[in-house]
Amino acid sequence: MSPAIIKAWRLEDLIARLAQRPLGGLVLPVQGGGPEGLDAFFKARSVAVIGASARPGKIGHEILRNLALYEYKGRVYPINPRAEEILGLKCYKSILDVPDDVDLAVIAIASEATPKVVEECGRKGVKAIVIVSGGFKELGGRYKDVEEEVVRIARRYGMRIIGPNCIGVFDGGTRIDTFFQSRERMLRPPKGPIAFMTQSGTFGCTMLEWAAEAGLGISKFVSYGNRCDVDEADLIRYFGQDPETRVIAIYLEGLSDGRKFMEAAREVAPKKPIVVLKAGRTEAGSRAALSHTGWLAGEAAIYEAAFRQCGVIQARNFEELFDMAKALALQPPARGRRVAMVTNGAGPCVMAADACVERGLELASYTPKTLGELKEKLPSYCIPGNPVDLTGSATSADYEVAMRALLKDPNVDLLMPFFVFQDTPLDEGIIDVVADIRAYGKPIVCCAAGGPYTRKQARRLEGLGIPVYPIPERAVAAAYALVAYGEIRARLGGS
Amino acid sequence: MSPAIIKAWRLEDLIARLAQRPLGGLVLPVQGGGPEGLDAFFKARSVAVIGASARPGKIGHEILRNLALYEYKGRVYPINPRAEEILGLKCYKSILDVPDDVDLAVIAIASEATPKVVEECGRKGVKAIVIVSGGFKELGGRYKDVEEEVVRIARRYGMRIIGPNCIGVFDGGTRIDTFFQSRERMLRPPKGPIAFMTQSGTFGCTMLEWAAEAGLGISKFVSYGNRCDVDEADLIRYFGQDPETRVIAIYLEGLSDGRKFMEAAREVAPKKPIVVLKAGRTEAGSRAALSHTGWLAGEAAIYEAAFRQCGVIQARNFEELFDMAKALALQPPARGRRVAMVTNGAGPCVMAADACVERGLELASYTPKTLGELKEKLPSYCIPGNPVDLTGSATSADYEVAMRALLKDPNVDLLMPFFVFQDTPLDEGIIDVVADIRAYGKPIVCCAAGGPYTRKQARRLEGLGIPVYPIPERAVAAAYALVAYGEIRARLGGS
Repeated sequence: MSPAIIKAWRLEDLIARLAQRPLGGLVLPVQGGGPEGLDAFFKARSVAVIGASARPGKIGHEILRNLALYEYKGRVYPINPRAEEILGLKCYKSILDVPDDVDLAVIAIASEATPKVVEECGRKGVKAIVIVSGGFKELGGRYKDVEEEVVRIARRYGMRIIGPNCIGVFDGGTRIDTFFQSRERMLRPPKGPIAFMTQSGTFGCTMLEWAAEAGLGISKFVSYGNRCDVDEADLIRYFGQDPETRVIAIYLEGLSDGRKFMEAAREVAPKKPIVVLKAGRTEAGSRAALSHTGWLAGEAAIYEAAFRQCGVIQARNFEELFDMAKALALQPPARGRRVAMVTNGAGPCVMAADACVERGLELASYTPKTLGELKEKLPSYCIPGNPVDLTGSATSADYEVAMRALLKDPNVDLLMPFFVFQDTPLDEGIIDVVADIRAYGKPIVCCAAGGPYTRKQARRLEGLGIPVYPIPERAVAAAYALVAYGEIRARLGGS
Repeated sequence: MSPAIIKAWRLEDLIARLAQRPLGGLVLPVQGGGPEGLDAFFKARSVAVIGASARPGKIGHEILRNLALYEYKGRVYPINPRAEEILGLKCYKSILDVPDDVDLAVIAIASEATPKVVEECGRKGVKAIVIVSGGFKELGGRYKDVEEEVVRIARRYGMRIIGPNCIGVFDGGTRIDTFFQSRERMLRPPKGPIAFMTQSGTFGCTMLEWAAEAGLGISKFVSYGNRCDVDEADLIRYFGQDPETRVIAIYLEGLSDGRKFMEAAREVAPKKPIVVLKAGRTEAGSRAALSHTGWLAGEAAIYEAAFRQCGVIQARNFEELFDMAKALALQPPARGRRVAMVTNGAGPCVMAADACVERGLELASYTPKTLGELKEKLPSYCIPGNPVDLTGSATSADYEVAMRALLKDPNVDLLMPFFVFQDTPLDEGIIDVVADIRAYGKPIVCCAAGGPYTRKQARRLEGLGIPVYPIPERAVAAAYALVAYGEIRARLGGS
């Protein structure tokens, strides 16, 4: 089936195709599915760590340590039948022995022992469970049966589960986290507008640290691994309602329920941008995904067409997922596809022009008024095309002339300034110039690459809400996301 | 014309096609072309800066400052008719007034004034000239005539020119540099095995700083801008003979002489890997290139087929050019296409499997002996496939078992370890383990992404000569370069 034909299918047919595929999911009826009951994962006032260990380096130790010793303000209860006290906290033999209510249980014990403690969680009145341990469906056979049993028990008690085989949850506000990655090894990001869900804990770690280093805030984070209960659709709806979330970013290997996902995405996309990285495009990738989290990846073209129709923006790799989420968090959507470039070094603009064409963006043709203004006000050696090449002699005053002229031009939908901050003629005033031109209200995406000085300048721009990318292809991908979201809103009727 | 048909053309036909295209180059006969006379650019014992300025921030000031105040040990002569002294150096009205021999002249004055000073350089016996200034062919019309005049004068005196419209040269050994980027704004890399030539000065700045921060050494660097005399082919032959250069990396917009380039590449590629990033793949990109350095970019498919036949490895973007050069500088070429992955977090391996397939690499199928060893020696929750998934509980001992088994396997040509360094169970011993397995002699390319701790570990691995990349697609691109160079050597008969 050719991708072009698939693209022309109706959403209903695409969803039907996704539903027919052997996706390897559990076939339990979904009871209590939906975004309900997810608050307990992020706002739990008390957490029990089942499988807490006194041995540093052990997963059950590190989870307890991160919850007990850092920013989380709730009560924390270690559960371990063979310890009296861990990290100065009284240890309980079973969660049933804990004297207070427990909202959230984090489980890090051998998979075979899990059904028993989940049953105890149910009897205790726990609302939400994160199962960090692996050794479930991804191993197949009897391990898959254990996973199904755990889900059955949880549903009987109305508990929700994230995992198993994951690193769990993080909330930028309450600072709850269920990670076994120590603070020394993994930064936590500040609170902010991006919600991120990921089937891969590894990509989760990367995303959290990239966000922390970029000063980019995370509202809520979920690594859901085998996804035995809470799924992407539940989370999309939950994040869709979450006042702290403005952008939803997703790393996905395969879906359990294509219809549910697409319906949730279609509902939320007009309100908040959704960016997805879908792995397992090839057969080899799909096989790797199956042994990773037990899910078969579907056909790339079907997914792509369905995502498009539901208003989901697709990233091509993990950097792009991060880059697009950053742009959508910081900048308004574009009202059209016409990009204007300005630079003090034109090499990257050649690559950017190629990338724009390949992404379906257009290089803006300026009005005669703009061209006249550029020719009149810029030094004679500047080239007033697209890009406007200010050359290595450019000062912040030259940039100001060019950027104001371009942003005023009705033929320009998005401004893409390139900066060679290494070029000494470019004075420090450039930061204030960029701060001022935000007032035009058109989206701005920058490109600059280099060492410490360039990074310092880029961070200053990002502090102003202007995203900066190191290579032209990444800047263009970010611009594409802003253009795509503008079109999605126009098509699906967003506010 | 379909790319598949073009791919099947003979090299001679491809070159003929390149030669027929209106490439916009100068039509002067090449006299004294070739790699001869290029030593003076990198080993000059004395340099004159024509257009030296007393004003900080001016291009003519910064070039002088970089040459006079830092690592370069030769004599430096500022030339400026209106100054007595700059930065404590006696200033001369003309290069003819300098009392000693001058090997290299760096010119940073208005283009119209250039022919006169080039004539004076000739009379003075200067061997090599870097023209940093723009305002030549890239502006067209009479500016193009000025460029042709300058070349005519230089050829009469047997002088070689790099530029105009460039940032010039850097030598990792003699520490000569003609940059107008201050040390405060742009790092200089250490001496090392990579020679880099670039039509874009901007990409040059980025490459130099990325290399400096990665601790990756540069033998020689050339930003050649409009390329009025010394061209890529001259530089390929020169770097091919240079004992300090092991890898040649090139950023290219368009060629002046396709035949000369391809012949030089075909000659040098069996001895040293050549990696090229060719910009201007699309018509819009080509237009941007034309106004940038005055060259029309040729048809992508013709270039691609010609590069392939000449043994040139093609990068898709600037990060990839850097990533591939790093891998080729640090690791041996691969003897086949079969990649083995090992990880403590499998998400990135799903993306890597996709990327391998798209690059024509294969996921290795292990021998029964290897599989037996993995099953016997690894903990039961590990998944001994490709990737070998050691899970988040992995220790350095688990990695050692897996990596030794894979490297011993005759079905494995290249090892790709993924590390989630954030995962606390992964102990510090991992660095020594990787150091030891280098002895197997097979290429190793790693993937790890995160914050400060991950970067520290990655730097330690790179200190051992093992390249590390942040996302799977970049690791796979690096692996592809090692596989491609293995095949190029086998095909073209390298040593």
